[in-house]
Amino acid sequence: MPTLVCIRHGQSQWNLENRFTGWIDQDLSPTGEVEASNAGSLLHKEGFEFDAAFTSVLTRAIHTLDIVLNCMGQSWIGVTKAWQLNERHYGALQGLNKAETAEAHGAEQVHIWRRSYDTPPPAVSRDDPNWPGNDRRYAAIPANQLPLAECLKDTVDRVVPYWTEHIKPLVAAGRRLIIAAHGNSLRALVKHLDNIGDDDISGLNIPTGVPMIYDFAQDMTVKSRRYLGDAEAIEAAAAAVAAQASGKS
Amino acid sequence: MPTLVCIRHGQSQWNLENRFTGWIDQDLSPTGEVEASNAGSLLHKEGFEFDAAFTSVLTRAIHTLDIVLNCMGQSWIGVTKAWQLNERHYGALQGLNKAETAEAHGAEQVHIWRRSYDTPPPAVSRDDPNWPGNDRRYAAIPANQLPLAECLKDTVDRVVPYWTEHIKPLVAAGRRLIIAAHGNSLRALVKHLDNIGDDDISGLNIPTGVPMIYDFAQDMTVKSRRYLGDAEAIEAAAAAVAAQASGKS
Repeated sequence: MPTLVCIRHGQSQWNLENRFTGWIDQDLSPTGEVEASNAGSLLHKEGFEFDAAFTSVLTRAIHTLDIVLNCMGQSWIGVTKAWQLNERHYGALQGLNKAETAEAHGAEQVHIWRRSYDTPPPAVSRDDPNWPGNDRRYAAIPANQLPLAECLKDTVDRVVPYWTEHIKPLVAAGRRLIIAAHGNSLRALVKHLDNIGDDDISGLNIPTGVPMIYDFAQDMTVKSRRYLGDAEAIEAAAAAVAAQASGKS
Repeated sequence: MPTLVCIRHGQSQWNLENRFTGWIDQDLSPTGEVEASNAGSLLHKEGFEFDAAFTSVLTRAIHTLDIVLNCMGQSWIGVTKAWQLNERHYGALQGLNKAETAEAHGAEQVHIWRRSYDTPPPAVSRDDPNWPGNDRRYAAIPANQLPLAECLKDTVDRVVPYWTEHIKPLVAAGRRLIIAAHGNSLRALVKHLDNIGDDDISGLNIPTGVPMIYDFAQDMTVKSRRYLGDAEAIEAAAAAVAAQASGKS
C-alpha cells in the first residue's frame, strides 16, 4: 500500500521572535532541533524505512530532515531539495514582527494577509534583498516564476504541480518517501490530497515536528491521514500553532 | 580557474575505539562534530561558495558535510551520495580492534593489510552482515560490483572512474564543488590527481576535518593542492593520522 510521511519543521529562531519568516532563511532554534530529533526517534522506533526524501531549499526544513534521518540511521538516502516546497512567500511582511504589524495595519488586515486563501500580502520589489531573484540559490529559476508575495492559493499553485509531477509517481510506484517542509507548503499539499475547500483550509493547523502519515489506495486516492505519536502531545502542538495563528503568541 | 574542495570526515566513535571501520556505518563522535563545525566556519570565513556537493553513503561523511554546509548557510545546495566515494572496505577486519588484530596476526601482517597498495585484507563471505549486499542501501548495485574486501588499488579502481565520469566534468565547467569523504577514498583521488606512485601513496596522510583545496588549470591539470587553515594545527592533525597508521594510537 503506498504511503507517505510528511513533517513540518520545528521552531526556528524567528518563530521564537514572532516574526514573519516566509522565504527568509532562518535555521532551527535549539527547541526546533529537539523537535526534529524526537520525530526521528519516533519514526525509528516505529520501524519506518525510507527510500528517498524531499525538502525545500530553506535551512530549517533541510536541517529538520537531516536530524530526522540521522536519528534513523538513514542519512544515506537521496534527498531532493526543491524551491517549490518552500514556505509561502510573505512578501513585504517578511522580517516584521507580527504584533507590531498588527499595530501598524490593524489586526483585521493582518488576519486577512495571514489566513485569506487568495489575498496576498504586500509585494516586495525586485530590488529588495527579500526578492528571491537576488539570492543565488534561485539563480536557475526564471525570474517570472519567482514570487514577490504569495497568498496560500499561490503556494498551492506551485506545490501541487510539483507533487503531481515529481513525488506522486514515486509514491504510486511504491517508493517510501518523507517530505520535510513548512506550515503552508504542507497545508497546500493536504488541501489538494484531502480536497479541502478554500474557506476551510485556514482552519487546518499542522503541528510542528510531528510525523504525518498518508496511506493511499493503489489508485492513489487517500485512504487515511494520521499523526504519529502521543495523541495528547499532538493536540497540544496543534493548539500551539492555532494560538500563534490567532496572534496570541 | 576550476577549483575543488575536499574534506575528510572527523573522528568517529570507532576511531576512538581504535577499530577497523571500513563500510560499517559509524557516526561522528562529538569531537568529530566539532572538527566539521570548525571546517565549516573556516570555509565560511574565507568566503567559499559551493554549487553542489558529493559525499559517500556512509553517515560519518554525510554528517560532516551536513555540518559544514549548515555552518556556511549553504545547506540548500544539491548533494549527491555515491557509494563509490565510500571508505576502503576492510573485509573481515571490519569491527576488529586494531591492537588486538596485531596481537592475533602479528604487527607486520596488519601493517601489510593496512598499507600495502595491492594486498587486500581477508574477505568477508556473502552471508556476512558486513558484506554490502546484505545492506539495503546497496540494493540497486549489482552484487559483483560490491566488494568482499579491498586493497587501496581496489578503492582507486572505483573512486577514479567515478571522479572522471561524474565530478571532473562539473569542475571543468566551473561548478564549485565540495567532496566530503574518507581517508582512503580521498587518498585514492589524490593519488590519481597528483600522480603519486603505488609505493609512495601510503605515506600520504590527509588530516581529518581540514579543507583541502585543489586549483586546476583550464585543461584540468593540477596547479596546486593546499590545506586551508592554521599550518601548525594542520601539521598536528596529519601527525595524529600518521601515528594512528603506525599503530601508536
